[in-house]
Amino acid sequence: MKIHNYSAGPCILPPDVMRKASEAVIEFNGTGLSILEMSHRSKEFVAVMDRARALVKEVLNVPEHYEVLFLQGGASLGFYITALNYLKTGGKAAYINTGTWASNAIKEAGRVGEVNVVASSEDRNFNYIPKNVAVPGDADYLHFTSNNTIFGTQFKDFPKADVPLICDMSSDIFSKRINVADFAMIYAGAQKNLGPAGATVYIVNPEMLGKTGRDLPNMLNLETHIKKESMFNTPPVFSVFVSMLTLEWLQALGGIDEMEKINNAKAQLLYSEIDRNPLFASTTAVEDRSAMNATFVLQNEAHQSIFDEMWKAAGISGIKGHRSVGGYRASMYNALPLESVQVLVDVMRELENKV
Amino acid sequence: MKIHNYSAGPCILPPDVMRKASEAVIEFNGTGLSILEMSHRSKEFVAVMDRARALVKEVLNVPEHYEVLFLQGGASLGFYITALNYLKTGGKAAYINTGTWASNAIKEAGRVGEVNVVASSEDRNFNYIPKNVAVPGDADYLHFTSNNTIFGTQFKDFPKADVPLICDMSSDIFSKRINVADFAMIYAGAQKNLGPAGATVYIVNPEMLGKTGRDLPNMLNLETHIKKESMFNTPPVFSVFVSMLTLEWLQALGGIDEMEKINNAKAQLLYSEIDRNPLFASTTAVEDRSAMNATFVLQNEAHQSIFDEMWKAAGISGIKGHRSVGGYRASMYNALPLESVQVLVDVMRELENKV
Repeated sequence: MKIHNYSAGPCILPPDVMRKASEAVIEFNGTGLSILEMSHRSKEFVAVMDRARALVKEVLNVPEHYEVLFLQGGASLGFYITALNYLKTGGKAAYINTGTWASNAIKEAGRVGEVNVVASSEDRNFNYIPKNVAVPGDADYLHFTSNNTIFGTQFKDFPKADVPLICDMSSDIFSKRINVADFAMIYAGAQKNLGPAGATVYIVNPEMLGKTGRDLPNMLNLETHIKKESMFNTPPVFSVFVSMLTLEWLQALGGIDEMEKINNAKAQLLYSEIDRNPLFASTTAVEDRSAMNATFVLQNEAHQSIFDEMWKAAGISGIKGHRSVGGYRASMYNALPLESVQVLVDVMRELENKV
Repeated sequence: MKIHNYSAGPCILPPDVMRKASEAVIEFNGTGLSILEMSHRSKEFVAVMDRARALVKEVLNVPEHYEVLFLQGGASLGFYITALNYLKTGGKAAYINTGTWASNAIKEAGRVGEVNVVASSEDRNFNYIPKNVAVPGDADYLHFTSNNTIFGTQFKDFPKADVPLICDMSSDIFSKRINVADFAMIYAGAQKNLGPAGATVYIVNPEMLGKTGRDLPNMLNLETHIKKESMFNTPPVFSVFVSMLTLEWLQALGGIDEMEKINNAKAQLLYSEIDRNPLFASTTAVEDRSAMNATFVLQNEAHQSIFDEMWKAAGISGIKGHRSVGGYRASMYNALPLESVQVLVDVMRELENKV
């Protein structure tokens, strides 16, 4: 049976990427070696790393002087790296709190210096995105999380501020056009729209680095990694390789504008049904609904067991909601086809006819 | 042509592991999903993580109360994690310097607190292992690197000390029997004897943690990862899965004792030829020669181009020495078969006959 994979992450990747990745595990590019057993200093892998970094720049139209890094540790280590590299000794940083990941970023920055939470949607269990946020002009940077996978909210317009912007885009990077030049740094765990867990992409304006007055351990120092062209130590070779394949797939599909159109069509299809179908309700503010993660609940809990049975029978996987929200969460990352969304919508309609 | 892969790391893995890994990239365990697109919270992957952790304990006969973690960042991040978690505020740590990686560990620990280099082989370009090291009884721990991949040296007997031992075993873990109970912590990048780059295994005596008086960022705090059973954040799923496969392969082969026998036979075969063949010379002290990485040079540099041509023609790959030693380095990690060593030895003999 075909599985419609709505996993919140690690998540669906394009079948063609899987096929090429599987082949490279046996033999990479006619070398007689598996991609898993090649030196990261081999000319073949150096070419993979260079191409992956270049593709990030091409796909997102990243300014020439920005640097792209593939590091390890996920956004969770990124929270700490952010503060270490940008929060000046004696300075302060501004954060917007839109849920679990933003809260964790705030916690880790607090270990480095003063943190000012300039806006929060905690008052309504993070079901909306704070607007018109006032950011003190003397903050070292403003940090926010572009998309909240758990609560299903997403910034449609990025906040404006007179200080450098830093964004954790783990769950919606590469899903839509963004203006990278607006940011001092963007970082994102690979395991949503990019590749397998284990790589974390950093897109960095190097002009903003080296201003904290702090001596940093090499592995947490973005300048070290930039100097070594993302190869200070052994990189997560396979995750970088698969990320490269995914970016090639995205380019072949028509690039970021085409991807955004497809993602909007998927979100439109599902949210229309959530709004139309009297059995379901959205859990988030309409204007802040994520195109990546749609969270919704049944109006009547008595319908749960039959609905669960029906979507499982249709081959749908991974739409159980996170425990802090309950209900359902349909994650519609780049590689999820429109047809999979149609299958879910059909099940929702069937439920309406049945009960 | 069959390739004899002597890469220093990432390095050769067993063909059977590659085949299973390749298959799982298409579909894992009848789930209808690729191992790359499965939630790390799925029961299938939780079982993989549990099994990988349990296998480390079984294979190395790890004491029951020790904890096994699969983290990210390589040994390079481990250098800093070590000092953060074990070097007390106001305390000091003892280090043995046996080359590049040990030096880097010393550098990162120096960012955390006082470091006392109690022995070094720098005086002879790290071509030997310091013996009978005196370690101050008030040091928080003694750190050393069990095997030096670059200079081809290896501790045959581990140092004795009245303080906790911490060891970076990146390049010889799982190659021979060790007594884990002697160590407060062992850590190792996966990409030699364990799996693909991107995972780092930590074997930890939890009784020794939490004594530094230091507040640690979550991602660098071993106690956090222990509490969350190595799933504080998204782990490097594929690297953990392949590590599990490699450990299963090692067990099926007969376990660590059998592995040690095979590794000794390979080292014996190559070093005997280096010693016998008048065209070659070993670069390390005989008693400290690594069973994992054999470094050697040609006595006469004029033979280099013909030798290079010959081993390339035999399908040998990755034996160029590191730039800081020159000559050749034959890395004979677990998955390298004895037959591959025989091919290299045959080429060395042919060269002798030819010139």
